[in-house]
Amino acid sequence: MDTEKSFKAQLKELRTGILEMQDYLKNERISTLIIVTGFDGAGKGHIIHKFNEWLDPRTVSTTAFWHQSEEERERPYFWKFWNYLPSKGRTALFFGSWYADLIAQKLCDGLPAETVENRIEKIRFFERMLAADGVLILKFWLHLSREEQLSKRSELEKNPQFHWKMQSVDWSQEGHYDRFWETSKLVIEKTDQACSRWIQVPAFDPDQRDFLVAKAFVHNVQHFNTELHKLRKSPAPPLPMIQMNSGAVSANPIPIPTPSLAELSPLAMDKMEYSTLLPDLQDQLFELAWKFFEQKRSVFLIFEGWDAAGKGGCIRRVVESIDARLFDVIPISAPSKQELSHHYLWRFWKSIPRAGRMAIYDRSWYGRVLVERVEGFASAHEWQRAYNEIIDFENQLIRPGHLVLKFWLEISPETQLKRFEKRQVIPFKRFKLGPEDWRNRSKWSTYQVAASEMIEKTHTHLCPWHVVQADNKRATRIEVLKTIVQSMSQAASHGKVNSSGRSA
Amino acid sequence: MDTEKSFKAQLKELRTGILEMQDYLKNERISTLIIVTGFDGAGKGHIIHKFNEWLDPRTVSTTAFWHQSEEERERPYFWKFWNYLPSKGRTALFFGSWYADLIAQKLCDGLPAETVENRIEKIRFFERMLAADGVLILKFWLHLSREEQLSKRSELEKNPQFHWKMQSVDWSQEGHYDRFWETSKLVIEKTDQACSRWIQVPAFDPDQRDFLVAKAFVHNVQHFNTELHKLRKSPAPPLPMIQMNSGAVSANPIPIPTPSLAELSPLAMDKMEYSTLLPDLQDQLFELAWKFFEQKRSVFLIFEGWDAAGKGGCIRRVVESIDARLFDVIPISAPSKQELSHHYLWRFWKSIPRAGRMAIYDRSWYGRVLVERVEGFASAHEWQRAYNEIIDFENQLIRPGHLVLKFWLEISPETQLKRFEKRQVIPFKRFKLGPEDWRNRSKWSTYQVAASEMIEKTHTHLCPWHVVQADNKRATRIEVLKTIVQSMSQAASHGKVNSSGRSA
Repeated sequence: MDTEKSFKAQLKELRTGILEMQDYLKNERISTLIIVTGFDGAGKGHIIHKFNEWLDPRTVSTTAFWHQSEEERERPYFWKFWNYLPSKGRTALFFGSWYADLIAQKLCDGLPAETVENRIEKIRFFERMLAADGVLILKFWLHLSREEQLSKRSELEKNPQFHWKMQSVDWSQEGHYDRFWETSKLVIEKTDQACSRWIQVPAFDPDQRDFLVAKAFVHNVQHFNTELHKLRKSPAPPLPMIQMNSGAVSANPIPIPTPSLAELSPLAMDKMEYSTLLPDLQDQLFELAWKFFEQKRSVFLIFEGWDAAGKGGCIRRVVESIDARLFDVIPISAPSKQELSHHYLWRFWKSIPRAGRMAIYDRSWYGRVLVERVEGFASAHEWQRAYNEIIDFENQLIRPGHLVLKFWLEISPETQLKRFEKRQVIPFKRFKLGPEDWRNRSKWSTYQVAASEMIEKTHTHLCPWHVVQADNKRATRIEVLKTIVQSMSQAASHGKVNSSGRSA
Repeated sequence: MDTEKSFKAQLKELRTGILEMQDYLKNERISTLIIVTGFDGAGKGHIIHKFNEWLDPRTVSTTAFWHQSEEERERPYFWKFWNYLPSKGRTALFFGSWYADLIAQKLCDGLPAETVENRIEKIRFFERMLAADGVLILKFWLHLSREEQLSKRSELEKNPQFHWKMQSVDWSQEGHYDRFWETSKLVIEKTDQACSRWIQVPAFDPDQRDFLVAKAFVHNVQHFNTELHKLRKSPAPPLPMIQMNSGAVSANPIPIPTPSLAELSPLAMDKMEYSTLLPDLQDQLFELAWKFFEQKRSVFLIFEGWDAAGKGGCIRRVVESIDARLFDVIPISAPSKQELSHHYLWRFWKSIPRAGRMAIYDRSWYGRVLVERVEGFASAHEWQRAYNEIIDFENQLIRPGHLVLKFWLEISPETQLKRFEKRQVIPFKRFKLGPEDWRNRSKWSTYQVAASEMIEKTHTHLCPWHVVQADNKRATRIEVLKTIVQSMSQAASHGKVNSSGRSA
């Protein structure tokens, strides 16, 4: 009885400290992600309740990930989590997470060890990416011994609410505890990284458990603060760079020669040839878009290139071939305030369409390593990190069976100048030209370095760059449409998408 | 041939005008909603493409509403549309809309005339609400005569793409044209309002059609501008007040006496009684929350009342009874910049959970007629309009079988002062008190007038106010829990929700 009182009393004393930590996180605009997981019967839901009690609820959101919706199944696995990531200064409580999913699938569906390893690598990468972006990740594992769980079980079985709370648990199965803990232990060990440590809490005594969780929260925020200050004083990067494990993401450039911007020769095409080829390609694209829709496979078309390289013209030739219900054009300009308070990939995750649609990006996530690099909106550490993050993102889009095609439209500075001047003259094209375009033009060589490095670093087997010499508009459009039609035809013959949206 | 050229040429001349109109809308921060509907074969998709070509795509979004997702079915019918409404200065193109849905359902499911009338009233109300908020609504009906549709049909049947484009149309059915037009005509006539006029366009000749649509766009934006200027000069309200049609929304206060804040007598409860009643009510609530989840029925709990009236304490007693997977606490504070660029109800529509969850609002949409009224953030016309808009919103939440319970916690100024002083002393409660609270306190009588009027105007049969005298915290919590448990038990016995989320 004495200890019980003492934990309760200690917890009461901590309450102010918890709020001070939350204030600190709010003021420093640090996002906090709290994951609560552990044994059934250990009080996961209870801890979620407690955090809601301890913290000022105005900057806290709680999300329970369980019954997966159709919308979620139609997107890459991590989509549902991205949707609920905390913005700067806010705290997200995740009840159920990539851990609960992985452990349940390993136990129920018997995922092979290799798949588990792969999933673990992806989790490690995901958490490192968030941490590198400044997110404080706190992962709580609520622990029970075999005897403790048995005792919780008989306690809970007396409770008439038992059948609701424990519906998912097959307590009766012989060896359930051991199998669950064996899998969980492996996952915990392999996902315990410097940037996202596990906090294991003995959970048998509720008062002790609550106190320990609260203490760990305060302690970890303080520790985070100390580390942050150290890092800010030192010239080192704010967080360790992501080191790619070869198993996780194929970050290595593909062994075929990377397309070089310097060696392109201009294409040519006369009006006659163009007007014969165009309608034929557009008809094929129309049919393919419907086929992909039927197969529930999405297509992501990414258009990058110089101002006035003809991205808009290509996009229009694509969309006018496709049924208006099947595509979404996503023009990317400067991020909004809300987007800036998230990881830069957040807005792109939000833009992922339901399965079977075509998403057409007029500029894209590559802005991170182009305009944001050149204009200094992203630090060197940030844009250098982005290459692997982008490769990982694209792989996640591709894995469920979708198609990602990325185009770089290359023009000469002379062509750009000619087109700028033309835009100034044609009234309904004038809106396309602003002072920013002239400013960017003056930094041609800096952008050229960035573009070449981008293509070199993100030209992968799964998702190669299609570099098109775009000085001739007609030839460019035909080339782009041809590439899309060929890639889609090829992919269409590979059959249906894995509708679970979950990758091996 | 002469006319054809002439339409094309005229359209070309219009291009600059279209962009100028878009610029005007952008600069004036006017939201524009363009609905494209009409006969199959009339080129609806084509017009969507054209708008994307004419307009600067950076402020335009296109949404095709067709295959309804599970997430959409689990929310009130208008939820999917709210999600895609344009923010200030942006344009949204809707392909498929409440019109396409209604006409299709009338023709395929044979909705009775009364239901159609009801739906039409709801559409009228919805559009008036948007218009009153400053949204420019352009509704295009692309028209074909019977002979023209026949001719389009034989033209399209020659096209190999025909089976994709026309999959929904049963051309062969005898009298299809007449039935379709009869229903559509009725809907068009009844939804042609001053604030959202229909633009009927002969659609047989593609060039003429495109030109007429473009011209109507330019003309209507100009007209909108003229009206706006007139209204700004005159002392009249910016848009006609919404006059409720009795059939649409039960706007009349219910004939039972409205609870009066003045006549409440304080409740009392000793600790002993409280600690006997509380756990029992919480157990019942736990069970009921699961039952509602199983029945896919949601519960919306709205807590309003004075600062320090004990909203947070009530909410905590509610949520600690419920499985953490089943609820969402939504604390409402000042709207974000993004939220401000939408109708004030937009953020509440976004917060609607999937069916079967409990959404608990710590303050709510009633802020419009409380803080926004008192502090002058909403004009008199705006907050006066809000009563009916809120009643309509709540009715939409309730109609699919969900439950909305709203509580007003009433305390005396003396109780508030005592609680404020206590908050200053207890360290972990200090965050609950800011200078704003003292400021609000000084406006007690103004808030009192607003609160009384709010209760009087929004106390409806479907959704009455529960006014609780809250000077005694224990008694208040018990009273609130009792009301929730009783209402949920009563509702639970009424059976399952209409899973279509669509009301009669």
